[in-house]
Amino acid sequence: MGNSLGRLFVITSFGESHGRCVGTIIDGCPAGLPITADDIQREVDKRKPGVAMAATARAEEDKVEILSGVFNGATTGAPICLLIWNEDVDSSEYEKMRFLPRPGHADYTAFMKYGGFNDFRGGGRFSGRITATFVMAGAIAKKLLNLIGIEVLAHTVEIGGIRAEPKQFDEIRENVDKNSARCADRKAAGEMLKLIERVKQEGDSVGGVVECIALNVPVGLGEPVFDTLEGDLAKALFAIPAVKGVEFGSGFSVARKRGSENNDPFTIRDGKIITTTNNAGGILGGISDGMPIVVRVAIKPTSSIAKSQETVNLKNMESASLTVKGRHDSCIVPRAVPVVESMMAVTLCDFVMRAELLPRVVK
Amino acid sequence: MGNSLGRLFVITSFGESHGRCVGTIIDGCPAGLPITADDIQREVDKRKPGVAMAATARAEEDKVEILSGVFNGATTGAPICLLIWNEDVDSSEYEKMRFLPRPGHADYTAFMKYGGFNDFRGGGRFSGRITATFVMAGAIAKKLLNLIGIEVLAHTVEIGGIRAEPKQFDEIRENVDKNSARCADRKAAGEMLKLIERVKQEGDSVGGVVECIALNVPVGLGEPVFDTLEGDLAKALFAIPAVKGVEFGSGFSVARKRGSENNDPFTIRDGKIITTTNNAGGILGGISDGMPIVVRVAIKPTSSIAKSQETVNLKNMESASLTVKGRHDSCIVPRAVPVVESMMAVTLCDFVMRAELLPRVVK
Amino acid sequence: MGNSLGRLFVITSFGESHGRCVGTIIDGCPAGLPITADDIQREVDKRKPGVAMAATARAEEDKVEILSGVFNGATTGAPICLLIWNEDVDSSEYEKMRFLPRPGHADYTAFMKYGGFNDFRGGGRFSGRITATFVMAGAIAKKLLNLIGIEVLAHTVEIGGIRAEPKQFDEIRENVDKNSARCADRKAAGEMLKLIERVKQEGDSVGGVVECIALNVPVGLGEPVFDTLEGDLAKALFAIPAVKGVEFGSGFSVARKRGSENNDPFTIRDGKIITTTNNAGGILGGISDGMPIVVRVAIKPTSSIAKSQETVNLKNMESASLTVKGRHDSCIVPRAVPVVESMMAVTLCDFVMRAELLPRVVK
Amino acid sequence: MGNSLGRLFVITSFGESHGRCVGTIIDGCPAGLPITADDIQREVDKRKPGVAMAATARAEEDKVEILSGVFNGATTGAPICLLIWNEDVDSSEYEKMRFLPRPGHADYTAFMKYGGFNDFRGGGRFSGRITATFVMAGAIAKKLLNLIGIEVLAHTVEIGGIRAEPKQFDEIRENVDKNSARCADRKAAGEMLKLIERVKQEGDSVGGVVECIALNVPVGLGEPVFDTLEGDLAKALFAIPAVKGVEFGSGFSVARKRGSENNDPFTIRDGKIITTTNNAGGILGGISDGMPIVVRVAIKPTSSIAKSQETVNLKNMESASLTVKGRHDSCIVPRAVPVVESMMAVTLCDFVMRAELLPRVVK
Repeated sequence: MGNSLGRLFVITSFGESHGRCVGTIIDGCPAGLPITADDIQREVDKRKPGVAMAATARAEEDKVEILSGVFNGATTGAPICLLIWNEDVDSSEYEKMRFLPRPGHADYTAFMKYGGFNDFRGGGRFSGRITATFVMAGAIAKKLLNLIGIEVLAHTVEIGGIRAEPKQFDEIRENVDKNSARCADRKAAGEMLKLIERVKQEGDSVGGVVECIALNVPVGLGEPVFDTLEGDLAKALFAIPAVKGVEFGSGFSVARKRGSENNDPFTIRDGKIITTTNNAGGILGGISDGMPIVVRVAIKPTSSIAKSQETVNLKNMESASLTVKGRHDSCIVPRAVPVVESMMAVTLCDFVMRAELLPRVVK
Repeated sequence: MGNSLGRLFVITSFGESHGRCVGTIIDGCPAGLPITADDIQREVDKRKPGVAMAATARAEEDKVEILSGVFNGATTGAPICLLIWNEDVDSSEYEKMRFLPRPGHADYTAFMKYGGFNDFRGGGRFSGRITATFVMAGAIAKKLLNLIGIEVLAHTVEIGGIRAEPKQFDEIRENVDKNSARCADRKAAGEMLKLIERVKQEGDSVGGVVECIALNVPVGLGEPVFDTLEGDLAKALFAIPAVKGVEFGSGFSVARKRGSENNDPFTIRDGKIITTTNNAGGILGGISDGMPIVVRVAIKPTSSIAKSQETVNLKNMESASLTVKGRHDSCIVPRAVPVVESMMAVTLCDFVMRAELLPRVVK
Repeated sequence: MGNSLGRLFVITSFGESHGRCVGTIIDGCPAGLPITADDIQREVDKRKPGVAMAATARAEEDKVEILSGVFNGATTGAPICLLIWNEDVDSSEYEKMRFLPRPGHADYTAFMKYGGFNDFRGGGRFSGRITATFVMAGAIAKKLLNLIGIEVLAHTVEIGGIRAEPKQFDEIRENVDKNSARCADRKAAGEMLKLIERVKQEGDSVGGVVECIALNVPVGLGEPVFDTLEGDLAKALFAIPAVKGVEFGSGFSVARKRGSENNDPFTIRDGKIITTTNNAGGILGGISDGMPIVVRVAIKPTSSIAKSQETVNLKNMESASLTVKGRHDSCIVPRAVPVVESMMAVTLCDFVMRAELLPRVVK
Repeated sequence: MGNSLGRLFVITSFGESHGRCVGTIIDGCPAGLPITADDIQREVDKRKPGVAMAATARAEEDKVEILSGVFNGATTGAPICLLIWNEDVDSSEYEKMRFLPRPGHADYTAFMKYGGFNDFRGGGRFSGRITATFVMAGAIAKKLLNLIGIEVLAHTVEIGGIRAEPKQFDEIRENVDKNSARCADRKAAGEMLKLIERVKQEGDSVGGVVECIALNVPVGLGEPVFDTLEGDLAKALFAIPAVKGVEFGSGFSVARKRGSENNDPFTIRDGKIITTTNNAGGILGGISDGMPIVVRVAIKPTSSIAKSQETVNLKNMESASLTVKGRHDSCIVPRAVPVVESMMAVTLCDFVMRAELLPRVVK
């Protein structure tokens, strides 16, 4: 239960890290959208570790296959099944740790919730690998949003305390893919990568913040009081493992602001109503106000670290210590960037359809 | 659309600020739960402004009535309708401002989304008054959670940059209702109240942070990958007007932490597995881990301020300036405390039912 | 749980037969629809027993009030709460029968399901009175359907074995309200009413069949494979107490037909594709085909009869006999007609919105 | 949209008749249920045409694969993906008929709804082949129901006007698989098969009725007023192509019955409350009453017939005639039997979980 998301653009995720595959079903995509496996592949490839320093040992081939819902190069209106077969991987290390829950991971909670029946190999359903299913869905969502001019763009704004300077949207779009930190501020990016390397040498990991912006969002998306734009975006973003905070616009800094500072004054530019500031992050009363949607997510440091950690043996209920073997990302923030982008796209797509801004058949 | 929340414990909110009433339907409450209007009233009363300095001009009598679902003092298994009639209030001020959207409010987005048909009086559906419907639902959720020992407690931790010292749960429970800042740190509370008073004199407003803790939450609540405990709590909390950020455990500070710091080591205490720290805020992999759930929400400064603000006349598309008349809370953070508590209770209740931890009939 | 219906046009029913009120929330109605309490009242009045012979003792005043969602005579986009206050009625007879479940009623199943906490007075949630909440929702749905020319019309086609001759739509529309059997075949209507009277004298009751037709339904409503037009209509219709069967077009007679008879040939009339017969009842593959939607529902004889019946005392688990006191409809088929119409309208409305055939704001 | 069903036991169907595969996702299955591909295969094989006279030309190998959600032979609590690869088939015949909608089929409605983008080969999403995805889900549902003793059994009761004599449950269970009509009345079965053969020679087809019974259903399943047991079962059953009617217990015959006949008197047998008759089909007020659930579905004659039929060319809007080539079942009633059984099992499973009668972890 709980593996589907959305009301009109519904995605369903399935698969496990070391099982046969990971996949996603998209139900509700309009018919007639041209789509190829390559379109999806391009997005999925963005999840790949970009440079050696952030690399995982596992070579993720991640070849996307379309199993249903696409015919003669276009969506049919039927559910689209996208799938990536897993390579055969060695799960023996996980067998050894089976009763030793790794701190920071879902090992313990999954074991308890599913009575020990959960597929623990590689974290199973709780692996970061599952986010490939989000990115596949996001690829289609982005194509749909593109039909009405909405652009979604995520980038790294902080890693381990190093913060990027604010940049204009154009600059972000141009620079985000030019470094493996996925940070539009090249200077900060350099420092971030150095920090990641240092932390890696220490056998440790480091967290950060990803920001995601949506441009050209029409006024009126969001269905308050419960299906607010903030609420549904937040729910979608918290599905990404490692996300521990979500904030919009000024976010937590509102706690230190006056109303006179934080309220965004309305004005007219080019015959269109805008706000002169965007502390609201493009959302007022849970509804998009036409300004860029701005959301930031806090990504915790990778739970898998080389350092020895304290845990408990679930079999004999004795204290134990644990060293997570294998090479792991010492910072997953850059790899989270396309995932954040995807979850935002998927959620916006659902709201765009609720607002009847996408046709049921694309022509 | 979007006015219902939950899968098994489903709440539906209705009503407007200056309409006839505000109300809530609770569908899915087990039969046999003893409940009186007074039980609900007590929780609703917590929303009242505690002291003069935070008072709104409007005397909110807010008398709760039970319209359905309760018979002979106990729930019947049928949908429970709880309702508060609105007093007659003067809406003439809102008539005047009808085409002048107040910055920070939903006036503009609601006007655009609903084609100008929205009930704008007092903010209509977007008024803070709607949160009374959340608190009514929360009152029932808290009674249900209480059956299995779960306690939910919210308190103010920051107002306008003034932060409370961390306190133990017992201390928070004892002190939260002793001052009108609803802050367990009495010294900080004093400063907060002084700041609120000063800001009020300035015709301005101030924001803050509310923390909510749930104790005795069993391991296993949450239905990943999409219906995570964090995700559904966040969605529920963003339904509260003015919330612009939600974080769990270490929250955004994870961006500055190492994995070795942030991972919570497991150990055994009194024969039970716990973590020695709680950076995860009681949630691992989207599932409760048995530690206290800790969530913080950023509350923006009240949008209604006495200072003059820039806006646009929607009728003639000309710039205009606006002064919001009437007395308004210069800080709604303390009044948000019971609302945050309610939305957390409602969400936990849904997950508790999904985990089959509440019977369908209470005996 | 289970008191809401629909995905985009969502209705939530609440209230009990002898409680304070019965009501409905409609969430998802477009803004800008002109609506008055009188509009709803007219539909609700159709549920009233038309003539003495079908009358219930209870004088149902059933005055509709609009509690929310309508402002200045038009819908606002917010949830619409419609409510009918119950008159004070004597429930003492039900107190006496509390542990004696009436055959054919939900007394036994409700008692067991809700642990005896259900409001048993007048059948509580399981009373036919609850269908007033369906009719209120249906009144709004019909107004919306009317915007795009869809007309929904139900009529009695069989009572106690007496079958009406098939009539043209225009004839049905004109005649249905001219007799208290709500049967367009006047001759059959006369016989039906005589039968009802005779059965009444015998202290017995009789069932029948209601047919409902929707005209001008565009091609393309329905979301297979699970949200078929037939499936969602059937689900909605089975919510009406006493419905035990639902069939479309040729219905159960398909069991005796050949494919060459039952397949509806396509042809062109006035430049439009139609079928020359309508055995499919306007639905092919779960999707409307542009022909009239035709559905029939089997209504069982009223469970409340004056004759003595065998039952069991739930308190002492001994056999008992029971005579249901009070005056009851000896045939509810005519009163079910507007209810069937309402559930059809509500369901079509949801599909019309899914197909983006209604605007989000009515202008 | 519309390809998922259920609230707690959620199935999602995907795939097309001549696409790469047909598959189903089951989300919400408790962890710990032992399951193998063979378990599913056995049920899927029941869909195969049993004897030559009912055979389709297409050799359906239909080998079930488990892609996710099962680990070490047991369910993990994660979504279960079950899949059958399609064999390469010749779709050229369908290319030719692309703009000639076959009467009785969804060709026309699908073409219109999806703007001609639908995969028309073999009927695509509207093929009877899609019911293999229902049977896969049903196989798991039946295993779960079996844990609490619920047995679901469907059988043919009418084909082309030939009706089976009523039989006891034990007799049905024993005989249903002994003839290719899947009819427990051997004499009627013989006549049915003869009729099917004759109709086949005529290039025609014939319909029928399938009855499904569920034994040992506890009192209390169903969530009125909208999620009634009848309503949700009907919705699930109408997902089966060719179903045009659904009735419970006495069904449409209630139209000719008196209340004194149709009401089922309560009595006590072996210390348990039962009804002496079962006109209600085991459901009172939308809730199971502990008696066998009895539902019958009307199955229309196969739409594909060898006879020439009238249609319209969608390309040039001219009348045309059409002969459906290939060998097709002249009666699909027997093959519908396991499908009806599956949809009933799936729906009951959802209600059993709502009633908390299945654990979240099977031990």
